[in-house]
Amino acid sequence: MGTIDLKSGERLDDLQRNGYRIIQDPEKFCFGMDAVLLTGFATVPDGGSMLDLGTGTGIIPILMAAKTKADRIVGLEIQKESSEMAGRSVILNDLQNRVEIIHGDIKEAGDLFEAASFDVVTCNPPYMIGGHGLKNPDGPKAIARHEILCDLEDVVKAAARCLKPGGKFYMVHRPFRLSEIIVLMHDYRVEPKRMRLVHPFADKEPNMVLIEGVRGGKSRMTVEAPLVVYESQGKYTQEIYEIYGYK
Amino acid sequence: MGTIDLKSGERLDDLQRNGYRIIQDPEKFCFGMDAVLLTGFATVPDGGSMLDLGTGTGIIPILMAAKTKADRIVGLEIQKESSEMAGRSVILNDLQNRVEIIHGDIKEAGDLFEAASFDVVTCNPPYMIGGHGLKNPDGPKAIARHEILCDLEDVVKAAARCLKPGGKFYMVHRPFRLSEIIVLMHDYRVEPKRMRLVHPFADKEPNMVLIEGVRGGKSRMTVEAPLVVYESQGKYTQEIYEIYGYK
Repeated sequence: MGTIDLKSGERLDDLQRNGYRIIQDPEKFCFGMDAVLLTGFATVPDGGSMLDLGTGTGIIPILMAAKTKADRIVGLEIQKESSEMAGRSVILNDLQNRVEIIHGDIKEAGDLFEAASFDVVTCNPPYMIGGHGLKNPDGPKAIARHEILCDLEDVVKAAARCLKPGGKFYMVHRPFRLSEIIVLMHDYRVEPKRMRLVHPFADKEPNMVLIEGVRGGKSRMTVEAPLVVYESQGKYTQEIYEIYGYK
Repeated sequence: MGTIDLKSGERLDDLQRNGYRIIQDPEKFCFGMDAVLLTGFATVPDGGSMLDLGTGTGIIPILMAAKTKADRIVGLEIQKESSEMAGRSVILNDLQNRVEIIHGDIKEAGDLFEAASFDVVTCNPPYMIGGHGLKNPDGPKAIARHEILCDLEDVVKAAARCLKPGGKFYMVHRPFRLSEIIVLMHDYRVEPKRMRLVHPFADKEPNMVLIEGVRGGKSRMTVEAPLVVYESQGKYTQEIYEIYGYK
C-alpha cells in the first residue's frame, strides 16, 4: 500500500474489496449506496477502458479496479478538492498504473478525451434539477446532488461522445427522471438496453434506477428482476451484502 | 340483461363485475390478464369519456363501464367479427347508453373522432414487432398479438390526437419495448407520468408494463411498487384477486 497524508477532517474507509480504502471527509461528501450498486451493475471487458464522469472522491474507479480486470480507468471530477482526494486514494491503494484521476469538466469531456475511445462510461450524477433556493450552492454536497455544474443532458452527451461504437454506458439515477433519461439516451444514440429498479423493500416504490445503454444499439430493453435493499427493517438482503463484498 | 344470439363456437364468460358477461370464441381470441390489469390501473373521471383503441371483443370498455362512472365509452376495433361480438356483448349487458363499439382503423382515429375530445384513451395493443413468418397472419390471434394492421406509433399518435389537453393515456405492453414506448409518448407529447411493472413472481423479471401518459404533461414520472401476480405457484396475490373482482 502507498503512503499518503490525511488532512484535517479526513478519514479512511475500508471498501471490503482487495483491502482497498478510500479517503473521505464526512463534512464534505461521502459516497452512498447508489455508487456501490452501480459497480455491481456495470461490467468492463478484461483489458478494457472505462471513464467515470463526475467521480467525486473516486469511489467508482477504485471499486471497479477491484471488481474488474479493466486496464485503464479514468475518473473525471470538476471539484478540485474532491479530485485531489481521489488522487491520493489511488496512490494509497497502489492503483496508479490502472487508475487516473483528472480534474476537469464533464462539459469539456469532448476536448479532454479522444472521441470513441472508451469501452465503458459510468456516472452517478447529481439527481436533483437545478440548485434554486439552496443555502450553500457552491458546497461539495450541493454540487454532487444538484444539477448546478452539469445536467443530465451534459452527462449523456459526454458519454455518447467518449464511448466506442457498441460501448456501454452505466448510470444510476432516480426513477422520477426515467422518462427524461430514456429520451436523452435515445436521442444521443446510447440506446437503453437494460434496466434494474432498486426498491428499499420488496413491496415499496423503487428509489433508484440502474440503467445500461449501448452506443448505437437497437431499441430493445431487458428489465431485470427488482433489486431489493432490505429484507426486513435494518437487515440487508443477501444480494446487497454480496454487492458490498461481505461474505 | 339484454337478449343476444350466440354463434357456433362462442361462449359466455362471467366478468365478476355487476353480473356482466362477455362473448368470446376460444378458437379466435380470448382476452388475457393484461386487459384486466389495465382496467385496474386506468381511471376515468365521473361523467367523463373514454376511447379504447383496438378493443377486440370489448373487454376493456365493459370492465371500465363496471368499474367507473364514465358517461361515454367508445371501443374501436378493425376486425369486423370481433367488433360485432363486442357490440352483442354491449347489448347483453344493457350498456348501449354508455358503451359504443365502432368498426374502424386506429390509423383513421383522427377522422373518426373529433380531435381532443376524450378524457381518457386506453389500449392493449399488439406487442410483437411485425408479422413475418406467421402461419396465419390474417387470423384474429395474429392481428391481436402482432403489429400487422397497426404499430406502436399509430397507437400513440391516435391517442395524442384524440385526448383532451391533460387527458390520460393508459397502455399495457411488454417491458422489452419500454424505451420505444417512452420515446414515442414523449415525441407525441403524451408524457409518461406513471408506470407499474407486473412481475409473475416477486423475484422475477417483469413480463408486463402498465404506463400512464398525460397529454401535454411535464417530464416527471412515478414508478410504483411492483404488481406481483403469484404469491406461490398457482396462487394469485390478494391484489390480483381484487383487480379481478373476487372478494
